[in-house]
Amino acid sequence: MNQDYIIPEEWSIVEEGFDKNRVESSESLFSLGNGAMGQRANFEESYSGPTFQGSYIAGVYYPDKTKVGWWKNGYPEYFAKVLNAPNWIGIDVEIDGEKLDLARCKEIRAFRRELNMKEGWHRRSFEAVLQNDAEVRVDARRFLSLEQDELGVIYYEVTPLNRDINIVFHPYVDAGITNEDANWDEKFWEPVETRFSNREGFVVAQTFKTHFRVATYMHNTLFRNEEELALGPVTTESADDKVQLSYEVPVKKGEKASIQKLGGYTVSMNHDKDKLIPAAQEVIRKAAEKGYKTLLEAQKEAWSRIWEMADITIEGDVKAQQGIRFNIFQLNQTYLGKDARLNIGPKGFTGEKYGGSTYWDTEAYCLPFYMATKNQQVARNLLSYRYNQLDKAIENAEKLGFRNGAALYPMVTMNGEECHNEWEITFEEIHRNGAIAFGIYNYYRYTGDYSYIPEMGLEVLIGIARFWQQRATFSKARNKYVILGVTGPNEYENNVNNNWYTNYMAKWCLEYAAEQVEKVKEEYSEDHIRISGKTGLSDAEIQRWKEVAEHMYFPYSEEHGIYLQQDGFLDKELIKVADLDVSQRPLNQKWSWDRILRSPYIKQADVLQGFYFFEDHFSRSALEKHFDFYEPFTVHESSLSPCVHSIQAALLGRMEQAYAFYLRTSRLDLDDYNREVKEGCHITSMAGTWMSIVEGFGGMRIKDNILHFSPKIPGQWEGYSFKINFRGQVLKVSVKSGGTEFVLEGDKALTVAVNGKQVTVEPGNLVAI
Amino acid sequence: MNQDYIIPEEWSIVEEGFDKNRVESSESLFSLGNGAMGQRANFEESYSGPTFQGSYIAGVYYPDKTKVGWWKNGYPEYFAKVLNAPNWIGIDVEIDGEKLDLARCKEIRAFRRELNMKEGWHRRSFEAVLQNDAEVRVDARRFLSLEQDELGVIYYEVTPLNRDINIVFHPYVDAGITNEDANWDEKFWEPVETRFSNREGFVVAQTFKTHFRVATYMHNTLFRNEEELALGPVTTESADDKVQLSYEVPVKKGEKASIQKLGGYTVSMNHDKDKLIPAAQEVIRKAAEKGYKTLLEAQKEAWSRIWEMADITIEGDVKAQQGIRFNIFQLNQTYLGKDARLNIGPKGFTGEKYGGSTYWDTEAYCLPFYMATKNQQVARNLLSYRYNQLDKAIENAEKLGFRNGAALYPMVTMNGEECHNEWEITFEEIHRNGAIAFGIYNYYRYTGDYSYIPEMGLEVLIGIARFWQQRATFSKARNKYVILGVTGPNEYENNVNNNWYTNYMAKWCLEYAAEQVEKVKEEYSEDHIRISGKTGLSDAEIQRWKEVAEHMYFPYSEEHGIYLQQDGFLDKELIKVADLDVSQRPLNQKWSWDRILRSPYIKQADVLQGFYFFEDHFSRSALEKHFDFYEPFTVHESSLSPCVHSIQAALLGRMEQAYAFYLRTSRLDLDDYNREVKEGCHITSMAGTWMSIVEGFGGMRIKDNILHFSPKIPGQWEGYSFKINFRGQVLKVSVKSGGTEFVLEGDKALTVAVNGKQVTVEPGNLVAI
Repeated sequence: MNQDYIIPEEWSIVEEGFDKNRVESSESLFSLGNGAMGQRANFEESYSGPTFQGSYIAGVYYPDKTKVGWWKNGYPEYFAKVLNAPNWIGIDVEIDGEKLDLARCKEIRAFRRELNMKEGWHRRSFEAVLQNDAEVRVDARRFLSLEQDELGVIYYEVTPLNRDINIVFHPYVDAGITNEDANWDEKFWEPVETRFSNREGFVVAQTFKTHFRVATYMHNTLFRNEEELALGPVTTESADDKVQLSYEVPVKKGEKASIQKLGGYTVSMNHDKDKLIPAAQEVIRKAAEKGYKTLLEAQKEAWSRIWEMADITIEGDVKAQQGIRFNIFQLNQTYLGKDARLNIGPKGFTGEKYGGSTYWDTEAYCLPFYMATKNQQVARNLLSYRYNQLDKAIENAEKLGFRNGAALYPMVTMNGEECHNEWEITFEEIHRNGAIAFGIYNYYRYTGDYSYIPEMGLEVLIGIARFWQQRATFSKARNKYVILGVTGPNEYENNVNNNWYTNYMAKWCLEYAAEQVEKVKEEYSEDHIRISGKTGLSDAEIQRWKEVAEHMYFPYSEEHGIYLQQDGFLDKELIKVADLDVSQRPLNQKWSWDRILRSPYIKQADVLQGFYFFEDHFSRSALEKHFDFYEPFTVHESSLSPCVHSIQAALLGRMEQAYAFYLRTSRLDLDDYNREVKEGCHITSMAGTWMSIVEGFGGMRIKDNILHFSPKIPGQWEGYSFKINFRGQVLKVSVKSGGTEFVLEGDKALTVAVNGKQVTVEPGNLVAI
Repeated sequence: MNQDYIIPEEWSIVEEGFDKNRVESSESLFSLGNGAMGQRANFEESYSGPTFQGSYIAGVYYPDKTKVGWWKNGYPEYFAKVLNAPNWIGIDVEIDGEKLDLARCKEIRAFRRELNMKEGWHRRSFEAVLQNDAEVRVDARRFLSLEQDELGVIYYEVTPLNRDINIVFHPYVDAGITNEDANWDEKFWEPVETRFSNREGFVVAQTFKTHFRVATYMHNTLFRNEEELALGPVTTESADDKVQLSYEVPVKKGEKASIQKLGGYTVSMNHDKDKLIPAAQEVIRKAAEKGYKTLLEAQKEAWSRIWEMADITIEGDVKAQQGIRFNIFQLNQTYLGKDARLNIGPKGFTGEKYGGSTYWDTEAYCLPFYMATKNQQVARNLLSYRYNQLDKAIENAEKLGFRNGAALYPMVTMNGEECHNEWEITFEEIHRNGAIAFGIYNYYRYTGDYSYIPEMGLEVLIGIARFWQQRATFSKARNKYVILGVTGPNEYENNVNNNWYTNYMAKWCLEYAAEQVEKVKEEYSEDHIRISGKTGLSDAEIQRWKEVAEHMYFPYSEEHGIYLQQDGFLDKELIKVADLDVSQRPLNQKWSWDRILRSPYIKQADVLQGFYFFEDHFSRSALEKHFDFYEPFTVHESSLSPCVHSIQAALLGRMEQAYAFYLRTSRLDLDDYNREVKEGCHITSMAGTWMSIVEGFGGMRIKDNILHFSPKIPGQWEGYSFKINFRGQVLKVSVKSGGTEFVLEGDKALTVAVNGKQVTVEPGNLVAI
């Protein structure tokens, strides 16, 4: 770990004491989101120290130019980037003519931040001595409403401590912002309109090129000692991209001057683009009627409903407890499954990196969490997202020379188009196509809802199978089908031949698609194979899929008795990670790319990812052999790495190792293992943390429509519990060193398998094993 | 070929008739250069049609930002780009108030361009009918002085054909220009100062970041019927980056109004940066004294001296003759070997592509041409360029993790720093290091001047050997040294293991460096091994070089009896180029990168490049076997490809094939084989054209200090001749179908070998064989 200033509390993330070197890190960790918008924990008032300003709106992006170096045929024309959205939180605070700025105060005392995960709010309080010797206490609270997802609420309170003062609050909305990752400091927002009244301000702006139009709004109410003041602004400033209203509140020592600022966005994705201000006024009307306290109550209620289902408790280990709740909290802040146009960006609403785009992380890591802790429609929305983008995946494959309806899903996307232009990723990291098919299989396995396959999934499976069949080529030298020139899940290898994981995925996809075509043909009408009508899916084509699957080549070492990650892996200098000098780590910061590529080091599970997805295809001893061979070369420099290893270590009964991986995944950001949390949190890997407990320690699997558990417990813990929504039935599992208890909600019994033995759990009864 | 509008003439490139679709292509083909500056053949007067404006100054570049996609450790911070330099050629021409613009005339007649290669000038003439019905004849001549390389000369003449007219010439100098390849239309030149008088204008500007400062100047003289007019400007315009002087010349029908414009650049690389205007005034003073005709006479004289040595004649094939002269002319326009700070950019002064930077092309392709057609100092300057950049090559290797004085020369450079940021090129195309060592070997082999090695070359060889020894790793599985993760000369493969060419080069470099260390130690004092003093070159280290060289692994196919281009080459679908549908070519425009990578297609000689460099290491039958295996997979999509194949085809006695490759290389640009000549000409490959004749048809080799020839002649030719400066003796070789004649200049006999038999040529005597 690289930092430990976060105070361990079970339900909150807490920081005490002001340290300007921690500001950017805390801006990430204390981020807020409500699935539709989110923001880093930037201060409301001015701050002239180092800060990374970020507010984000789900689904709003910009296509950045990418023409650098030598252009390669098939590159996308743009690189999508998440945009720093207009600022609605800003409130400059002037105290006796001096602007409050924590970077310029004489003294800061009692600085405290709290991110209350249970209730979904952020609070920051401190006492400051200004250059003019005014001493004030500030208490700033805010939340992004789950109930009305276009609404954010701030309650900002100032108390003079040593004299009467004159306060001017300058709340503003501002579209004149830039991205931190902008190459040329260019702006991405074009102002459209501003409007204001005594209490309200609006800035309408639209993104260049993509023309997302957004009204950023605010509505201000002033209070003295919590009593509303009928104040108009003393001055108003309105530029083409900013509105600022200034309210003057003289207060006596010990009195409180407060401003309640309602703000947020209305967006053209959800409203008529010419009626964004009226839409915002409607949000304001509803919210202002309720006021801060009522809104906050609704917020607590909404979060309590989420926790009721999603919470995991850990007894006897506060840091582990805080870690898992932080992960669950952030996942829910990022994606709530209401809107099938949205997906889960690797940084959520906490930073710009990865452009806010969708990766294979969704199917490979996030889907199980959402299936188990939400209703089935949420997972179905995640799958539909890909179904709705099938045409674009087919276009994407066509750009790369594939034909006849072959689909290659993009590695990185906002709207279905590929939007990343490094060939080794975009063109070669094709295993993602397998994860998308696996997601369909996994959804059916978990939910038992087969209807998704004939209605949508089959078309996706056919497109993917077509891709793999065309992508594999026949090697006369080997008399097998080979897949040349790929990048596997281990991105520390590029353009390798016969990555075992990719070849295995391809074979599985071809077989699974063929099976599903048969099944749908038999069990449903032929009409369901809609795509076959479009592009003529013939028996001969299915035969070709089977032919490729049957004769797929897999690199194998007789000497080691293991599948090789790729052709030629054993030519490398096989020095284990433990034997590397620590000064060399992390490799991605210390070594050049060519050196990483020719080394044996593995960024994240690759062969082992295949063993994770297809656990039942391999014996326990084969898993052990592969784990023992590959894990020692694994540097876990992807946030997605420790969780898979934690699950497998638990399966192999190596609980110390499993626990170490668990801690690393669950407190990756809180403890800043990778020295980069200031860039944002690792949202998608947080679902892996959940898997580490439920699938790793809890040993949960679905086999033949039955929930299986093989509970284990790390020595450091007294107990842990989690809930599972399995096909509409909610089961709570509590594991203690003495045994496991199951409690079932509802009115129908459920048969589960515990350590291989079937047990029937009756509703309401506690079953202890 | 894709165009054939260039009229075949032995000494000139000629275009007749105006076609706006050919303007950009002709701007490339009719380019002028004098080694120090150069420019595309843009019109002097305004032109509103599609055009690619380009003026370039040798050695002046800009470091472009490169941060796109995911940053990789070890990337250079910038991508050098050649800059479009300020414009000195511009002369707007106003005729009775209407601006002359060939894109807007009612009619254009008798349009003709000529690039006279023999004398080194460009002339463009036409008759135009303007919108105001004025009919004029224009005759515009210009050249870039070889004698004074900061000077360009224009003589622009207008003759009214149908009525008396009023002409206003608006000559200008302008630093407000942009690059065509600018991603964001940004400007690279910052204005510093402008100055003007009645006849002169100056704009001083400097490049952002690199701070090259340049005075762009002009000096104007007006004539009526060739009689100088004592005219001052009617108006002068001076912005911060432009000076324009306007001269009014009323002329009667049939009279001539002319302007002589002297212009060019003085640059801070060669002058005190605060005295650039005085330096330009001095150039003007000297040139204006002489005047157009005298300057032109000197130009003809200077070019005749170049041709005297460098010309190749071909009888019976005008197109082939024009082709080879075009190549020789362009090479001499680009680089004259006067300045060891300069080198040969792949596009010379004809376009922006490849950033004007230095590639391995110089050592691999250009060196033989300059050794044979110039004095030895020119080649030595090319080698010194690398010697002077050795420290930067060591830094470059350090960035990639190499130690102890290992040197990796950059793939692309302006000043010794790597300035390209595609990892597969920058980090992996390491074979360039071998070409640089080979250049040293080749220089000594050709010139017999060993002094370069103890004085400079040995340090370079040691740095290079250190790199190879560290870069090779030991494979336990093979019990050999392997070189993993490289890109060979065939850039249609990336990150391959054990590229045969690279491994062979590495082995050779290690052995050659070890030999040279021994030789210098024995024959010179130990002091010459200067670098050994710096970093401790021990016998043990040399032993390690030998160990790696001795146990180097080479991929080989028993089945085919050939070395494999790389590990796994035979896993590809081995469909020959001839069996590909023509609609698929060129692959680099039709196929995506991943598809190219997994195909067997070869961009340019790779294994065969090794057979070219080390011809004597292999039997004729081995060459034949490898040629027959690899050539059918070669798409020749690099301009550097056909020449090597032409030489090898000639060696194998396949004259039809050799001739076809020759035509392709020599008329690559004139006939626009690759549909891209408008981007500029392929300068470095032009040296390959020269090699195709001298080494291919002429069969010239140097073995054991003796010139060898095995002359052959393509069936399409009656004869050809070339001259060779061999160690200070100039030998003219004339090949006809009936035999070969040698004529030697000077007063010393020379023994050469012809078809393996030694012959002594006496000075002045003609020896026919």
